[in-house]
Amino acid sequence: MRVIQIGIIGGTGGMGKIFARLFCDAGYTVHVSGSKTGLAIPQMAEKCQVVIVSVPIEVTVEVIEQIGPLMHEGSLLMDLTSLKAEPVKAMLTSSPAEVIGLHPLFGPGVEAFAGHCIVICPARADHWLAWVRDIFAKEGGTLIEMTPERHDELMAIVQALNHLNSIAMGMVMKAWGVELAALETVATPMFTQKLAIIKELFTHNPGLYAEIITRNPASKRIVELYQQTLEDLATLVTEQDAKAFTQLIKQRSPT
Amino acid sequence: MRVIQIGIIGGTGGMGKIFARLFCDAGYTVHVSGSKTGLAIPQMAEKCQVVIVSVPIEVTVEVIEQIGPLMHEGSLLMDLTSLKAEPVKAMLTSSPAEVIGLHPLFGPGVEAFAGHCIVICPARADHWLAWVRDIFAKEGGTLIEMTPERHDELMAIVQALNHLNSIAMGMVMKAWGVELAALETVATPMFTQKLAIIKELFTHNPGLYAEIITRNPASKRIVELYQQTLEDLATLVTEQDAKAFTQLIKQRSPT
Repeated sequence: MRVIQIGIIGGTGGMGKIFARLFCDAGYTVHVSGSKTGLAIPQMAEKCQVVIVSVPIEVTVEVIEQIGPLMHEGSLLMDLTSLKAEPVKAMLTSSPAEVIGLHPLFGPGVEAFAGHCIVICPARADHWLAWVRDIFAKEGGTLIEMTPERHDELMAIVQALNHLNSIAMGMVMKAWGVELAALETVATPMFTQKLAIIKELFTHNPGLYAEIITRNPASKRIVELYQQTLEDLATLVTEQDAKAFTQLIKQRSPT
Repeated sequence: MRVIQIGIIGGTGGMGKIFARLFCDAGYTVHVSGSKTGLAIPQMAEKCQVVIVSVPIEVTVEVIEQIGPLMHEGSLLMDLTSLKAEPVKAMLTSSPAEVIGLHPLFGPGVEAFAGHCIVICPARADHWLAWVRDIFAKEGGTLIEMTPERHDELMAIVQALNHLNSIAMGMVMKAWGVELAALETVATPMFTQKLAIIKELFTHNPGLYAEIITRNPASKRIVELYQQTLEDLATLVTEQDAKAFTQLIKQRSPT
């Protein structure tokens, strides 16, 4: 077997670390670079047949444009960003390498890939696709294949709307001013779940959620629909019209 | 021990059934009335020392005003509604009985009181309060005592805002039009939790959630704050300003 060397830019961060461990465990040589440590980009492009970009979303395209042109034809360039159209396009245009976009649908807290899903967008990947599929299959991860555009369209709901919804609720709570400790003493099971999500968003890496929302081109339309929906509901709340409110819930059910 | 007979109006419905079982198991004689079955209201007021009103929120005050005046002095009238100021006031003014408002903070799906919380609003309860506390303590339930007004203020967030938030997200999903099955294949853990809550709200008793939202006097102000919050967020989404969005998350954190 040819010895494959793997480079992970941002491999000291949460998600990069998990992928570094995956490839180490599978017996590959892994080179990791953090913001101030590890291989410089030209050396990584020279040594590695596979490079994964795992840096914050706002600098992903910039890093892709640095390493992309230096990579050899026949090598593989991948990224782990929460949006796919923009980075995949940047990889395709800046590099002669094969290109696969990945989006792990879990946080950096997981210990293993088993039972978890990863979206895979094979954009130019005749040679490497089987190898990538094989690696994740062996670890028990599930790969879901789609185009970058379809991925971003679904993430407009799964991530952009979802996070916007939690963030809005947290901000209304703050504006309302009730003490969290008092709320927790009378929390219902549904409120307990929501509160855990809100705490996570507001305390763990809020910049990531801001990027996921503002960078998705669908978010503008989603916010418009959200404002329209709230306006309709506000009218019924003001009129205290529970019957019409119930009717609207039935008419506009997403299920 | 004096033989205490318990009457539950609406005792054939979800929450009424649970309370009927509680008192049966504790050895009391329980009389249950459904909309077409069981003891008529005058007979129940005549026979029972303790009556619990467990009917839909929109007819609670009406039922209280029917049974309240017929109850004996020295007996106990309680309700299980999700809001407390209005029914407790109706019980106090319509009846010579002692009055306690209850709000079980769980759904009718639970099997036992152990590990669950119930808000208790003892409004006029010198004689009966110890007995009620004792019943729930024996079953392992936790009683949280507060005024009806404080209860409704906290429920403005725990229930009204919380349900409004989930309902709004579901309606935006419907307006956006993405298929649920496709979303489920790429669901993150946070989205999976939210979707379960949304499905519950839209399919199980939407009328109850509509009542909980529209009847809480704080809901008008909450919807105003919600609209203002969304307007602020919409501006940043339109400008794709992730930095300002991140700043706003940090400034308006409820934690």
